Amino acid sequence: MKRAEYPVEIQRLIASLKRLPGIGPRSAERIAMALLQSRQDAATELAQALAEAVAGVGFCPRCGFFKGGDRPCVICGNPERDASIVCVVEQSTDILSIERSGAFRGLYHVLGGKLSPLDDVHPENLRIDALLARLESESIAEVILAVGSDVEGEATAHYVSEALSGRPELKVTRLAQGLPAGGGLEHIDELTLHRALSGRRAI
Amino acid sequence: MKRAEYPVEIQRLIASLKRLPGIGPRSAERIAMALLQSRQDAATELAQALAEAVAGVGFCPRCGFFKGGDRPCVICGNPERDASIVCVVEQSTDILSIERSGAFRGLYHVLGGKLSPLDDVHPENLRIDALLARLESESIAEVILAVGSDVEGEATAHYVSEALSGRPELKVTRLAQGLPAGGGLEHIDELTLHRALSGRRAI
Repeated sequence: MKRAEYPVEIQRLIASLKRLPGIGPRSAERIAMALLQSRQDAATELAQALAEAVAGVGFCPRCGFFKGGDRPCVICGNPERDASIVCVVEQSTDILSIERSGAFRGLYHVLGGKLSPLDDVHPENLRIDALLARLESESIAEVILAVGSDVEGEATAHYVSEALSGRPELKVTRLAQGLPAGGGLEHIDELTLHRALSGRRAI
Repeated sequence: MKRAEYPVEIQRLIASLKRLPGIGPRSAERIAMALLQSRQDAATELAQALAEAVAGVGFCPRCGFFKGGDRPCVICGNPERDASIVCVVEQSTDILSIERSGAFRGLYHVLGGKLSPLDDVHPENLRIDALLARLESESIAEVILAVGSDVEGEATAHYVSEALSGRPELKVTRLAQGLPAGGGLEHIDELTLHRALSGRRAI
């Protein structure tokens, strides 16, 4: 005898949830049940939030960060920010991390990824041309390359700094590499220690 | 200076996702980003699956399991199943677990929870009256109480078996308690061992 299964509507919902990052088959089933069993308005509310986000969220044509509806990008549209310094990041989410640190008050430029030929991400897939165009039209004094310190991040930083070379008036910097805050030396890998040593500063 | 934040549409989506079971603030942000960044159709598809599930999924008036649209409940509507034996479970999801075991071919009855006065779940909040009504209108020979073996499950089983007493023709059974499959004695708690011993069977 065929074993009973969920109605096809529930199976489809579980399949959709399973495609989300970090959600396995068990979690997908538990979430679907919670949405359908507890109060049905939870499901309706999530469906509405999704539809509104898809319809209402766009990307700032200048920096590439998310922008809502017809409102200007919250960062580019803020006259208090220093437009002479641009921080180049891989992803929009990196902007939030830097904002949380409170250490930066300039503008941003989202590349939309990092160079990774194996994943078919080449220079033309990143917003490097848009960065060069900004250098022509805006008066930018410094570009900070705030990309990751993994292999792809290093390659991306190298490629972008090459593309920015030949502008003696432009300062190009990278984030410092070294010990993370609050950690002892015994937990640090060799490459990090190597970089922390070669980047040592006088006190 | 105020730090930049996500547009309000994204903040609302993250808040909605955070309310799902097992999804913390970080996961909610990662899921929202995946939905918005990768391909926007993932978000649309999930929104649609949610709306369809909310609109299309109901509950079988007889057993309480999910049913899709106007179609009959897949279990009650299956003439091959043995209608003389009814398995009483706490939740609809328990039905799927029992179905996966392949050990049962009768019908079900979902209580919709377990007695828990602290959580304000009293007998009248469970589908116990509906079970008694089924006993009047259907010819049921056995009721299996397949509730959990925790304190609330025990209390629920006790209450339901009391409500079913006074019917000498009705057999009321509970799931066996004892060692889980594939485990050694060293990992078993005392209460399980106690129950496994007192429920020992001749071989």
